[in-house]
Amino acid sequence: MSDTGVTTKKSEDFSAWYTELILKSGMADYAPVKGCMIIREHSYAIWEKIQEIFNRKIKATGHKNVYFPMFIPESYLKKEAEHFEGFVPEVAWVTEGGSSPLEEKLAIRPTSETIMYATFAKWIRSWRDLPIKINQWCNIVRWETKATKLFLRTREFLWQEGHTAHATSEEAEKEVMNILGEYQDVMENYLAIPVLVGVKTESEKFAGALYTTTLEAMMPDGKALQMGTSHNLGQNFGKVFDIKFIGEDEKEHYVWQTSWGITTRLIGAVVMVHGDDRGLVLPPKVAPVQVVIVPILYKAADSDAIAAKANEIYQQLKKKGVNVVLDDRPEYTPGWKFNEWELKGVPIRIEIGPRDLKQEQVTLARRDTYQKTTAKMEAAVQTVETLLEEIQTNLYAKAKTALEEKTTTVQNYADFKETLQTKGGFIKAPWCGSSECEEKVKDETGATIRLRPFEKETPVANCVYCGEKAVEMVYFARSY
Amino acid sequence: MSDTGVTTKKSEDFSAWYTELILKSGMADYAPVKGCMIIREHSYAIWEKIQEIFNRKIKATGHKNVYFPMFIPESYLKKEAEHFEGFVPEVAWVTEGGSSPLEEKLAIRPTSETIMYATFAKWIRSWRDLPIKINQWCNIVRWETKATKLFLRTREFLWQEGHTAHATSEEAEKEVMNILGEYQDVMENYLAIPVLVGVKTESEKFAGALYTTTLEAMMPDGKALQMGTSHNLGQNFGKVFDIKFIGEDEKEHYVWQTSWGITTRLIGAVVMVHGDDRGLVLPPKVAPVQVVIVPILYKAADSDAIAAKANEIYQQLKKKGVNVVLDDRPEYTPGWKFNEWELKGVPIRIEIGPRDLKQEQVTLARRDTYQKTTAKMEAAVQTVETLLEEIQTNLYAKAKTALEEKTTTVQNYADFKETLQTKGGFIKAPWCGSSECEEKVKDETGATIRLRPFEKETPVANCVYCGEKAVEMVYFARSY
Repeated sequence: MSDTGVTTKKSEDFSAWYTELILKSGMADYAPVKGCMIIREHSYAIWEKIQEIFNRKIKATGHKNVYFPMFIPESYLKKEAEHFEGFVPEVAWVTEGGSSPLEEKLAIRPTSETIMYATFAKWIRSWRDLPIKINQWCNIVRWETKATKLFLRTREFLWQEGHTAHATSEEAEKEVMNILGEYQDVMENYLAIPVLVGVKTESEKFAGALYTTTLEAMMPDGKALQMGTSHNLGQNFGKVFDIKFIGEDEKEHYVWQTSWGITTRLIGAVVMVHGDDRGLVLPPKVAPVQVVIVPILYKAADSDAIAAKANEIYQQLKKKGVNVVLDDRPEYTPGWKFNEWELKGVPIRIEIGPRDLKQEQVTLARRDTYQKTTAKMEAAVQTVETLLEEIQTNLYAKAKTALEEKTTTVQNYADFKETLQTKGGFIKAPWCGSSECEEKVKDETGATIRLRPFEKETPVANCVYCGEKAVEMVYFARSY
Repeated sequence: MSDTGVTTKKSEDFSAWYTELILKSGMADYAPVKGCMIIREHSYAIWEKIQEIFNRKIKATGHKNVYFPMFIPESYLKKEAEHFEGFVPEVAWVTEGGSSPLEEKLAIRPTSETIMYATFAKWIRSWRDLPIKINQWCNIVRWETKATKLFLRTREFLWQEGHTAHATSEEAEKEVMNILGEYQDVMENYLAIPVLVGVKTESEKFAGALYTTTLEAMMPDGKALQMGTSHNLGQNFGKVFDIKFIGEDEKEHYVWQTSWGITTRLIGAVVMVHGDDRGLVLPPKVAPVQVVIVPILYKAADSDAIAAKANEIYQQLKKKGVNVVLDDRPEYTPGWKFNEWELKGVPIRIEIGPRDLKQEQVTLARRDTYQKTTAKMEAAVQTVETLLEEIQTNLYAKAKTALEEKTTTVQNYADFKETLQTKGGFIKAPWCGSSECEEKVKDETGATIRLRPFEKETPVANCVYCGEKAVEMVYFARSY
């Protein structure tokens, strides 16, 4: 084992394993500023992949990227009361510029609704100006007081925030659901993380929204992770910021709005869900390096031929658009390299040694299963392409099984508490719809309603807390 | 003229023209926060092009993108004295988080040397850890007290900042020059803006650098614009932040460092240099929309055939990777559309009307020269590709001529002042090398030494200010 290996086992101390893995694999580092993190090259490259994938999706549907200032005057943030109450406890304030105190203190954006919508009011006059569909990739600050968790809870993080304004409620509703679908595609088909989708309860929705739709994943320690949200803002902000338009009917209307976001916490989810005791396991579709080639050079006689072959396959893969690294650094041994690239989660390792050379083959090692296979040299590229697909599929399937195993349906509060205690995970339970029951469950167990699923099921029993008639089955869980 | 047209003439009131054009073309808007701006979709798309181009370059040479926190503790910023003095007058300070005052106030990054290098010290142990070559795309805050100039001077802006650490001085020096070359390529071959390259004087260099290399362009009003800088930091920061490594010689050394950046001000330069009285003129290589197709529908009889042809050509161009828009909005007239797309600077407009249909041709209008040509429909794509190249070349050639016309060599101070007064531009003059003369010229005329060119020329006379022996020819100018 190289000195850079992970010493904690995932099954033994999940939280310590997570942190150690992130620090050692070059994903992130703690910053000199409390509560902040450095997003290092290996995870930033994953973030760039996510940006590329999601940009392609939203641009294809007419969204445009923009950049709004990160400073929000206190008076703007205050305009929507519920929104302000929701965010003010976590706002970082700029109070001095240069050597002078500011006249009005400025919030660093915890989210950009207020600064954007003040401007929407200026931009929108008639139905011809609608819809507005914009998005920005930027940094966000929420002054958390709880302990830092790399990627999941830091005072500054990166995200994208989409903001749209529409002429009708139906159009806004459609936008909310379209984006939710795109998010689900990113998470399931690229990050290989299955999610549950549904609606947040009133008490868990975005401050200022009509309703919030959400995507929730399950982590191996039994805690849920909110992966992204897509909000229908209705006309709440429109009325507060006076965003009106003259419709085709020549009458004045308020716009209907949506906002939606995903953050760098997705990277934390990838680490948690797929990683193992030897390191990261990255889904091929978002892996910055998909294949590493390690030539194994013992004898000088073979070395040149092996190096040449390694380079040949490297060039072939590169030409096919595979993200490939040829690790021919002479100062490290093959074993050291194997450990390093396993730590970094590279899906496929190709080894070419004297025996491979002799048999005109390469050896391929899968990161997800550790299985080794060989392929004739001329079939190397084809084999890599097939394997990458298999690994992608396998990671998703494994995560899907884990999600199912960590979902339990219960009929009463005793089972609810026992399941939460012994197993964690999602607990599907009947709920009467009252915020009071929701609150009580939260206070007594720490579990919240993560979502009310879109696919309604008939309640299997009465409300898990109060015993009154249940109106639906919902998913509870403890969460990050 | 549509109601969105620019009313100010470039030749009559350059500054008003610039601002009006930016606001009306959808490039930017003022923000509710004083001194800040909204980077709108049309300019952000150019920024994305610049990111794409420059990312490709630096990734090919082994640089990795990362993201460091934007908060810098005051104590870190203070560590390099010259650096702190240089930046502290323009720092915005966060003093409250949530509802509590912070123990140590935090600067919002005016540049990230200090926070990054504190971490470099942790990452670097031996020569094997070198070089470190990282870059980040992020927002930057400098609390300007002068009036805002969209893209050129705002309190928040976007940039990339590259930071490297090397084992030897030679390697750092090479990096500084390589990056400078890449910047020049971006500016000249993509933005079509010719630049002068050279070294800043001591008084104009980056605070904390050994020396600063710079790229300077000339704006139509005779003022220079610094387009980008690449700094050799020597061992200054290495010593302050104690960034040492064990070399192959098994001895301890301080690292050699570089940093370099370009900002969203490049977009302002594109507007100034290429724009005209009808609006933006965007170089094809960075234009978010390279071609707009406007079908001209008069009679219902022709309409379907014209619409079909327009769509056919649209599909062909799209397939070829051309950024093309088919503007078939029924609610606007062709004339209105022509004005709108001219305002937005789209390099080529394709018109297809009844006459074009009859003659199986399309009409192509160049944004840069207003020349119209026709092409047979089957040759449309080929013609577009050729024209795009011609426009790119022509814009650069025009800008190059303008730069040459705005460069004057003078031999004495009287000519210097007169040239500056009547013509502005770059004034090439002999200089003795003393900071005193530099300072006096600045105080008396407002012109600074923009650069000491790499290509040395024999001084044509004695120092333009003091009359003592000159050591080199340098470029003076008033600047943004």
